[in-house]
Amino acid sequence: MKKEMFGHEISLLRDTFRRLINRKANTNLVKLIEKTHSADLAVIYRFFTDDEQDYLFSLMTNNEYTAEFLSELDDSILEDLLENVTPERIVPIIRIASSDDQTTILNALPEEKAKTIIDSLHTDEQEEIEEMLAYPEDSAGSMMSTDVFTLNEELTAGEAIKDLQNQEDAEMVFYLYVTDNDNHLAGVVSLRALVTTPSSTKLKNIMGKNVQYVRAETDQEEVAKIVSHYNLLALPVVDSNDEILGIVTVDDVVDVIREEATEDFLQMAGAGKDREILLKSSWGNAKARLPWLFASWIGGVVAILIIGYFENMLHSVVALAAFIPVIIGMGGNIGTQSSTIVVRGLATGRVDLRGDLKLILKELSVGLILGSLYGLLLGILAFFFFKDAPATFGLVVGLSICASMIIATSIGTMVPLFLRKLDVDPAIATGPFVTTTIDILGVGIYFLIASALLL
Amino acid sequence: MKKEMFGHEISLLRDTFRRLINRKANTNLVKLIEKTHSADLAVIYRFFTDDEQDYLFSLMTNNEYTAEFLSELDDSILEDLLENVTPERIVPIIRIASSDDQTTILNALPEEKAKTIIDSLHTDEQEEIEEMLAYPEDSAGSMMSTDVFTLNEELTAGEAIKDLQNQEDAEMVFYLYVTDNDNHLAGVVSLRALVTTPSSTKLKNIMGKNVQYVRAETDQEEVAKIVSHYNLLALPVVDSNDEILGIVTVDDVVDVIREEATEDFLQMAGAGKDREILLKSSWGNAKARLPWLFASWIGGVVAILIIGYFENMLHSVVALAAFIPVIIGMGGNIGTQSSTIVVRGLATGRVDLRGDLKLILKELSVGLILGSLYGLLLGILAFFFFKDAPATFGLVVGLSICASMIIATSIGTMVPLFLRKLDVDPAIATGPFVTTTIDILGVGIYFLIASALLL
Repeated sequence: MKKEMFGHEISLLRDTFRRLINRKANTNLVKLIEKTHSADLAVIYRFFTDDEQDYLFSLMTNNEYTAEFLSELDDSILEDLLENVTPERIVPIIRIASSDDQTTILNALPEEKAKTIIDSLHTDEQEEIEEMLAYPEDSAGSMMSTDVFTLNEELTAGEAIKDLQNQEDAEMVFYLYVTDNDNHLAGVVSLRALVTTPSSTKLKNIMGKNVQYVRAETDQEEVAKIVSHYNLLALPVVDSNDEILGIVTVDDVVDVIREEATEDFLQMAGAGKDREILLKSSWGNAKARLPWLFASWIGGVVAILIIGYFENMLHSVVALAAFIPVIIGMGGNIGTQSSTIVVRGLATGRVDLRGDLKLILKELSVGLILGSLYGLLLGILAFFFFKDAPATFGLVVGLSICASMIIATSIGTMVPLFLRKLDVDPAIATGPFVTTTIDILGVGIYFLIASALLL
Repeated sequence: MKKEMFGHEISLLRDTFRRLINRKANTNLVKLIEKTHSADLAVIYRFFTDDEQDYLFSLMTNNEYTAEFLSELDDSILEDLLENVTPERIVPIIRIASSDDQTTILNALPEEKAKTIIDSLHTDEQEEIEEMLAYPEDSAGSMMSTDVFTLNEELTAGEAIKDLQNQEDAEMVFYLYVTDNDNHLAGVVSLRALVTTPSSTKLKNIMGKNVQYVRAETDQEEVAKIVSHYNLLALPVVDSNDEILGIVTVDDVVDVIREEATEDFLQMAGAGKDREILLKSSWGNAKARLPWLFASWIGGVVAILIIGYFENMLHSVVALAAFIPVIIGMGGNIGTQSSTIVVRGLATGRVDLRGDLKLILKELSVGLILGSLYGLLLGILAFFFFKDAPATFGLVVGLSICASMIIATSIGTMVPLFLRKLDVDPAIATGPFVTTTIDILGVGIYFLIASALLL
């Protein structure tokens, strides 16, 4: 995260666009759009007003560039932009778009409008699109490209190259998938191998037979794991008959990995899971964050009840109040460490469910080590600085810190493991739930120890 | 994160390995290793004891598979494994390894041993390896493969294909980089375009001229941004003369994105940045987490001093103590939301430094909205449930919650932006620093408001 070369270039480009928009320099704008990478233009769009966005889009032609640009936009920007656009403008773009871009664009439209657009396509186009739209969101099926190029295993390398030369549509060919006579996925050949083999060699003699593949309903996170684990550039998607439906390419997987990481980050902090939260208004932003703060509100109220219950003890040893923040803070922080390590470990496959007990015991011993250390430090501090308090006060503080940190590591470890067992994404609720539970238990154990040792 | 198909297969494979190891079934083990993907074997290694790891490695032959397997291992496992291996065993593996795998293996060895190995290679091999090792860690240079295949722009497509057929070493050819007569990077041609063009066409007429590239010293995070932003499969690395040094491939970029996300996760939680923290002993684990807990310890001690200072006020209104956890908790949680949104926004390029003020104002208004809401809720609760306290007590609680949440959003937003301005990775210190600051300021403002309104 050091240099900002890349961001800097984007900023310059954005300023140029803005100057030209202000001057309504349409001819120059059209030229600049042509020279700008669709991915760059999509990023720059984040910084334009709605009017600027609409204006610039009205200058764009109905070509593949425009389709790519639309699919690169943030979802919320795409939705806003398409709201003001007629179906007639979108139809030719849909027609020219690759199958995964089609899905992205149509999913961003209100259902009514999407239907109008689909209805005005040819029957075969309609069928293909409706099939794509039927796959669950975030599945391999919804992110695959159906423009895939397959070859029969009985073909020779030379015949395969000829076939390839007649295929213009197929997406990024570097792996060529080979099928048997029943049209089942049988192997994979790299274009490189095809070119460097004598042209009379049959594909079945040069293909790799151990092909990784997924089903259309496989979750995108699973797809990402497989692609990144085996260092693949593409992954074929097959139906229950092992016939190829499409391929997922690594560039889409890279997006998934980034997006899933961002979602996990936000969820761990209890800030919803909307990657585009920065594009929302303050109200929208507050609404997304409100429910998770409610969890910590509940925790706060329970803590009020606990402390209220021990009011008399507080009256006699007022110094107890001074240590409430540190007991909660140390517990909360070490608990967050544990839960973050476990949640990330589950996401990256480093934590595996059969090692649960070992993991919990290890975190417990980390809690014991650090709890003893910080308990000792704070116990001594309490003993020497609060001379008015009873002699056992230092002991109360030390034991409470230690207990709260041990409890925190176990809660922090067990909550995500438990959520995972329930098939709930551990990132979702771990953050707020763990800190709230630790707050309550920390305060509770502190006052229990105090009432046992001070009275 | 729903299905565990992938993890399940790995578990089965691990059990099979373990059974064969226990039976010392060497012949079967050798066969099983051959059939197992190097990436799978590397993951399974995490679950083996040191002895099992050494034993299995002793059965592996000195081929490219072994080199790949070694480079797929977690760093700490690789270091442990190589510790017990003689230089004589490693030399032939290094010789056969691709340039990026060479770097990984040599970097995992103690300096002495690495030197012995390098010294026993041929002079030209030595030079190449020493050049690679000289690039800074986490730079494009250290992750590139130098086995790159370039073509002169004056060649025809047909000549280029012939050239390609004689190149066996070059890494994953799907983009072919084209150079001009001065050997400068001039363009890029896909292997596909090469195959589908009439063989007499010159490369300079079919190549794309707008090639993205980086320098050898570019940080890997920048590399990852470029590759993912432009959906590339590979990125050429050039020297100051624009001559190609090597290429970084997308599979390595995928690893970088995953690793950087994991590091950011751990750093945000103040758990160090070692991705392999789960492989550490309890002591090692505790040591990595101790310093960050010290930050919250300091915060706790300051809170003790503040509350200690207001001891007399606490004596008269003991109910004040009951609201300490909720004031700290609400502030801490909303502050963590803000800082997470900003840190992740900086990492993904969604936050750009010139929009600082706008972002801070927005977060402040989110703090105001949610602070007013929760302040009202808790103020009313305090008013009705703590009848013994002064009539203004509800007001004190309400205002303090509101103030603490507004302060928390601004601290949470400004700290990462400020760290970034200082060229410090905002993920590093944001977590513990933000919560500690919020703890202190929250307690401080609470007791200040109380002393102003209650006395």
